[in-house]
This record gives sequence, C-alpha cells and structure tokens, in this order.
Amino acid sequence: MTYTAETWPIACAMLPFGGLDSHGGPIQDADPSEWARQLGLVRRLGFTEVDPTDTWVRVGDLSPERLAVFKRVLEDSGLTIPAISTSRRSVMDPERGAEYLDYSHRLLDNAAELGVGIVSYGFFQGFSEAQSKALWFWLADGWKDDFTPEVRDRAVTMIRDLAEHAERNGQQISLEMYEDTYVGTPDDAVAFLADVDHPACGLNPDIGNLVRLHRPIEPIQTMFDKTLPHANYWHVKNYLRDEDQATGSYTSFPLPMEYGVINYRSVITQAVAGGFTGPFLCEHYGSDSLGVCARNRDYIRSILSTIL
Amino acid sequence: MTYTAETWPIACAMLPFGGLDSHGGPIQDADPSEWARQLGLVRRLGFTEVDPTDTWVRVGDLSPERLAVFKRVLEDSGLTIPAISTSRRSVMDPERGAEYLDYSHRLLDNAAELGVGIVSYGFFQGFSEAQSKALWFWLADGWKDDFTPEVRDRAVTMIRDLAEHAERNGQQISLEMYEDTYVGTPDDAVAFLADVDHPACGLNPDIGNLVRLHRPIEPIQTMFDKTLPHANYWHVKNYLRDEDQATGSYTSFPLPMEYGVINYRSVITQAVAGGFTGPFLCEHYGSDSLGVCARNRDYIRSILSTIL
Amino acid sequence: MTYTAETWPIACAMLPFGGLDSHGGPIQDADPSEWARQLGLVRRLGFTEVDPTDTWVRVGDLSPERLAVFKRVLEDSGLTIPAISTSRRSVMDPERGAEYLDYSHRLLDNAAELGVGIVSYGFFQGFSEAQSKALWFWLADGWKDDFTPEVRDRAVTMIRDLAEHAERNGQQISLEMYEDTYVGTPDDAVAFLADVDHPACGLNPDIGNLVRLHRPIEPIQTMFDKTLPHANYWHVKNYLRDEDQATGSYTSFPLPMEYGVINYRSVITQAVAGGFTGPFLCEHYGSDSLGVCARNRDYIRSILSTIL
Repeated sequence: MTYTAETWPIACAMLPFGGLDSHGGPIQDADPSEWARQLGLVRRLGFTEVDPTDTWVRVGDLSPERLAVFKRVLEDSGLTIPAISTSRRSVMDPERGAEYLDYSHRLLDNAAELGVGIVSYGFFQGFSEAQSKALWFWLADGWKDDFTPEVRDRAVTMIRDLAEHAERNGQQISLEMYEDTYVGTPDDAVAFLADVDHPACGLNPDIGNLVRLHRPIEPIQTMFDKTLPHANYWHVKNYLRDEDQATGSYTSFPLPMEYGVINYRSVITQAVAGGFTGPFLCEHYGSDSLGVCARNRDYIRSILSTIL
Repeated sequence: MTYTAETWPIACAMLPFGGLDSHGGPIQDADPSEWARQLGLVRRLGFTEVDPTDTWVRVGDLSPERLAVFKRVLEDSGLTIPAISTSRRSVMDPERGAEYLDYSHRLLDNAAELGVGIVSYGFFQGFSEAQSKALWFWLADGWKDDFTPEVRDRAVTMIRDLAEHAERNGQQISLEMYEDTYVGTPDDAVAFLADVDHPACGLNPDIGNLVRLHRPIEPIQTMFDKTLPHANYWHVKNYLRDEDQATGSYTSFPLPMEYGVINYRSVITQAVAGGFTGPFLCEHYGSDSLGVCARNRDYIRSILSTIL
Repeated sequence: MTYTAETWPIACAMLPFGGLDSHGGPIQDADPSEWARQLGLVRRLGFTEVDPTDTWVRVGDLSPERLAVFKRVLEDSGLTIPAISTSRRSVMDPERGAEYLDYSHRLLDNAAELGVGIVSYGFFQGFSEAQSKALWFWLADGWKDDFTPEVRDRAVTMIRDLAEHAERNGQQISLEMYEDTYVGTPDDAVAFLADVDHPACGLNPDIGNLVRLHRPIEPIQTMFDKTLPHANYWHVKNYLRDEDQATGSYTSFPLPMEYGVINYRSVITQAVAGGFTGPFLCEHYGSDSLGVCARNRDYIRSILSTIL
C-alpha cells in the first residue's frame, strides 16, 4: 500500500478530551452519543484518523457488545484508527504490572476487531505527586525503570510475548520512547529492541518527550539517525528549548511542530527516504491541543506533498 | 440578541498605535484624518469592531463637537465600538484619583453618546520606573492596592457609583483583573464584586495578565472556573510559561492565543456554555501586536464556529 | 525602479541546506542537477528570489565555466539573486584574512556576472569550540574584533577598497551587524560606516543577531532608529526574549517574524517611509528553517501590501 500526501494516516490523539463525558461521567461507560460528539469535533477539525489514546476510551476494556457499538460510532464519524496508544500502563508497574499485562494482550485482540494494525506501549508510569503538581508534568521526575539485568530481562520477555501475540493477529507493536525507561534514550531503545528481537516490534521515536526535559540532551539529529530506521509508529510534537549558561537554567515550551527545535521537515524527509511507512500521531500539551494538532496535521501533509 | 460566529463582537485594541499621530502630535487632538488613517489599518486587517483604549484617544475627554466628529470617522471607517477600556487611570490613584473618578463618569456619558454598552475599569496604575525600564513591564513590580478595609471600602463605593451611573445610561461596567489590585486574583475579584453588589458591574477575566508573571500562579482552570460566571467583557491574550525548578527561574512570553498556556478553545467553550455573551477584546504585547490581534480574532471566530 | 508588495525582492537563504549534495559530497562541486534539486524546493515553497549564502555554494569560487552553468540552473529554477551574503569569512580573520579578502573581491566580480547588485560582508568569524557545542551557537562567546585604532583602521581600509570595487562594478556592499564586531552595536556600526565613508557601502541591520543574546540589549526601537537610515540590505529573523530578574537568567528562542520581540510591521513601515529600497533576506535557525522563511516572506508581503 502506497500513501500519498493526502492519504498518509495522521491521527489525532484523544488525550485532550480527558476521560469524562459532558455530564462528568466516565467517557468509557458513556452513551455512544457522547463518543460521537467528541469524535465529531475531531472530524470537524479536519482529521480523518484518530488514536483513541487509552486515557480516553480503553478499547481493551470494552465488552464485545460495546466494542461493536464503538466500531459503528467510529464508522459514522468518518474516522478510522491506524493505531492505538496506551499511556502510563507499564507492564513493569510494581503494583499493577500483571493487570496491565493482561490489559495489553486484551487490547491487541480488541484492536484487531477494529482492524487496527499497530498498538503502542511504553514503560512510563502514573504521575508522581510532584508531576501532578507541576506546571508541566515533565518538569518533575517520574518513574525510573530498573536496569538490573534480570528485571530488564523480564520486560524484554513480556514485550516479546506481546509482539508474538500481535504477529499472530497480523499486527505490530511499537515502543514509545520516554525518559528514564528502557527505551528512554536512542541507544537504550535500540538495545532493548535488539533484545526483544522480534519483527513485529518497532519503535515510536517520540523525541519530543526528550527535548522538553530540563536536562542536557543528545544532539537531536543523532537521536533521529539512531531511531528512525526502527520506527513503525510516530508520536509527533515539538518544543522550543533554551539553556542559560550563566545560571544553568533550562527552558522549554510546547509549540506547533513547525516552530520547535526538532526540524520535522528534515526528519520526516529522512524517515520517508529511509523507508518509514507508519502512521503519525499528533499530540500537543498545554494551550489549545486540538487546534495545534490540526495545524500540525496540515503541516505534515504539506511536507509530504513536497517529497512524495 | 443572539450572535453567530461571524457577528460576535471581537474588538481590536488601539493600544498598539500609541498616542501619537503621523506628525508626532497627540492623537487625542489630531485631525480627524489621522484617526481615520489608524482606524483604517484596523479595518484593513479585517476587524469590524474596535476598542479605543484610552492610551489612544480618550473618548471621555472629547468635547461634544469632537465627539460628533469621532462618531462620524468611526462610521466612515466601518467599525463599531462594543466597549471602551481605560488603562492605568485608577480611581484609587493617590495623586490623581479624584481626576480619574471624574473622567470615569464623563467617559460613561460620552460612551453612551456613541452607543457603547460597556466600559472597562481597573485598579492598575501608571508604570513604576522599574516597569518603564524592563524588557516587559510585567517583569517589574507595579502598584499594589491597599487592602485595609476602610480604603478598600472607598474603592467599592466609587465602583458602585460608576455601576449605578452606567445602569442609568443602560450600560454596564467591567473590572479588569490585574495583579496586586483589588481584583488581582480570582478570589479577590469575586469578593470585590460581591461587595460592589450591583447588577451593572461584571468582571473582565483578563487571566493573561496573571499567567505572564514571574511568580507562582493558581491553576489556570480554577481561575476561569471562579471568574467566568461573572464575566461581561473579556480581554484575551496569551503567553507561554515555564518554571525551572533547579534554579527557581521563571520564563514567560507573549504568543498568539492558540499557542499559549491558556487553552482558549476550552475556556471560550466553557464561557459560552455558561451564558457569556460579552464582547472580546484582542490585545497583544511585543512583536507585531496588530498582526497577532488579527490572527487571534480569526482564531476566536473559528472556535465559535464549532460551538454555536 | 519601484517595487510593489508582490515584486519587492525577498530572498530565501540557502543556509538551511548546509553544504552537502544528496550523495554527501560538497554541493560546491556537485552535479548541476543537485543545485537544481535544492533550488527547486525553494521555488516550490513559493520563493522567487534566493541568496546563495556562501555556506552553500561559494559563487566567488566558481570557475567561469561552472559560473555559466550555475547561471543557467538558476534561470531554469525560476529564481533570481538580488544579493549574495558571505558568512564567517572576515577579512580580519587572523589566519585566513588575506585569503578571505581575495575571495571577497573575486565574489564581487562573479556576482556582477550574475547581475547581482549587492554583496553582504561581516566581521563574524568561524565558530569557537564552545559555539559548535552549544544548543544554539549564540549561547557561547565567539570572535571579538580588536578595536585598537590601527587594527580597526585596517578593516576600514579593506572595506573601503571593497566598496570602491563594487562601485566600479555598479554594485553596493552591505555590512552585516553582528555582536562583538566593528558593526556589533548601532553606534559602532554607524561610526564604522562613517569612517568607510563611501556611497557604495551600506548596513545590513540584522538586529535579530542581537536580540537573541543572553546579555542586556539596547532598546529595540532605538537600534532601528539609528541603523535603518543606512540600510541597503536586510537580513530579517526574529526571536522571543525574556529576562528573569530574580535569578539573572536570560531566555531567547527563534520564532516566526510575526511573533518575536522585534515588531517588524512597525520597523518595515518605518524603513520604507524612510526610503529603504533594498532586498530582504529571510533567515531562520533551528526548527523548520525553510518553512518558517516561507511564512516570513508571506508576512513581509502582507505588511508591504498595507503600506505601498
């Protein structure tokens, strides 16, 4: 299947909608008209694809009946799902790891039911208290994975099991890069992938997660050089960044993709030239996330139109 | 009167024009062609409404003859005035309070002459020397209102008098939120309004004034939750903001509404759902204020078009 | 020759393309199809003018044969060159000054061959090691010119020689303002120009180079008041800027012209009213330089359309 600039799947994250319906109840259990209302806004902003990030509706937890309803609402909305992202449901969670592992497997099957070819997992965990209170959650420290070989090996095995399951379903899984996890730096991510060693497991090179940190970063170009060859799904977002050498102070801000420190024109061109054919997911924190995501989608299509 | 996304009044602030005409003389006393020239640019940028912020022409100080001329120039320019904002003319000014109080009352009558339904007042005062010298005036401390009960009571009384006067004219007044004044935090603003206790007095929830400060801020959502129910006029502008926890350094920048920390898509939706029917005023500091204001107007209309 | 908003020359800098062709070889020596490919993208982004910044192809080092080929490729691409900028090839370079002086003169003649009326020179030199390693090169100190009278006099003489050469060719030269050089502040730049004292030598008031620095800056308006009367070429780019008074920390970021601290609507209006008729050059660092340059070009034309 070959995409054009107009048909390349570029999904909107449902993250900005939070987890509530218009009456304040959980969107997970809401009337289908509530799903339709929120998806309708996404469609009205010009999206043709959506990723029902699981902070919104957990597709993996829908009963067969509700899943059928969800599928119908989605069709009526004019949106398709190229991939589903999980968020903060690490199989390595010290309290709920087993539960999240079950959920991760269930999600593959429900995703297959919707015809979804990719599911994205990560090792980032629930917010620390400091993260919950910070102006931006990335300003505070969160979970740090345990790199002790036997612990990391368990993670490798569980991810390989998910990849095998995905392969049986005709799907792929993607690992979202996130600081202080097994896939928190390009080198660590590539090494982890090599240990998983399964053709149905790729990377989600969400380098935006890294350039916003108030700490030194690896040069952006080398981060993409290392990770793009392994990418099968791509969370895209951007930040500006500055460092004051006199005081040691860092600054970073979320901005539209076109304006941040990552030169997406250049790295998307590089990715496509290198064979990347995965979907894009537009995310944005702070400000008008939906509006910026819609703008970012148009921006990606404009870049694709100069290179395809 | 019910507005559509196209007719909702969204005014351009005349603040970016400063106070001079093309010959360097005061725009207040300028030839009407000078008013026409500056209003013409506003119209050419696509605005249909304008707020003649009183750093530009002080409508309250126009003689009956000049007011009639002003009205005609305005009609010829294709612009209408939904509201007039005063700036740094607090009735609590220790030197000029009495003068500003007279002016505030005069302005209501001249505004009525122009068919203007809302006048916005505030307690922020003339720049301190540090504010005049700073890169951005909000980086330095300015006037701080005296919260001693008897002093604050005087303010309450004078504002109530203005509200009564406005009501007799068939108008409303609005109080602009500004740090370190009686309406400098959501709680203080709501309490002040309760003490004024007059149906013709509402709030101007200019939360942009607060999110740019280099000091801790209240969560943005709770600030709007508290103040939007009282809003009858709305100065809108946006900033990005960061905090470096290691050094304690704050950073903030003016940016187009769509890109700043305030999610205007969300709070405009919330305001309209809650019954807000007041005009918007587009302001912007630094950079190309007029260009950004025009962009912000289009952005507000695009949001309104998805919710009306 | 009188320009309209549509015809005023607004060039794209070739700087974002670096110095390599698609095979990793030097673009200087590349096959003409490689030049055509990179110029083609510039044209596709809507530019009609280009400045082959000499970090890309050094026009001054092309043989007569290659220069003829370059001219043909340019014509085929639909682009013209209003001016050529040199970068980091100061005639005062302690090691390579003589070589760069020769190059500077050669460039005038080759530029004349292409019908180019302006060449821009500067005293900024190759990156220091700290500049090479910094997130943004302007965060670290670079070369500082020697203001000893006899040393500076040598610079004045060499620049006057270039101006005389340019005049004989029917061209002009422009000096790019850059911190810590002889033309590093408005006062120093105007004084240097007065000492060169030649009608074919003007200023390139690239104030963007100054507002991004992590040090105190002169008020932006006074910088333009002093330098615009001498401008004959104009590198335009913009930055946002903040200062934290509590910690002494500075922050600055590259942003589209419309959003930075320089109000280009205002200073372009001022320049044109004062008689500026030179070309503009769009530059941008970090992020998607080409995309932002294209956006900046449209922005300049929109401003010109309201004042011409």
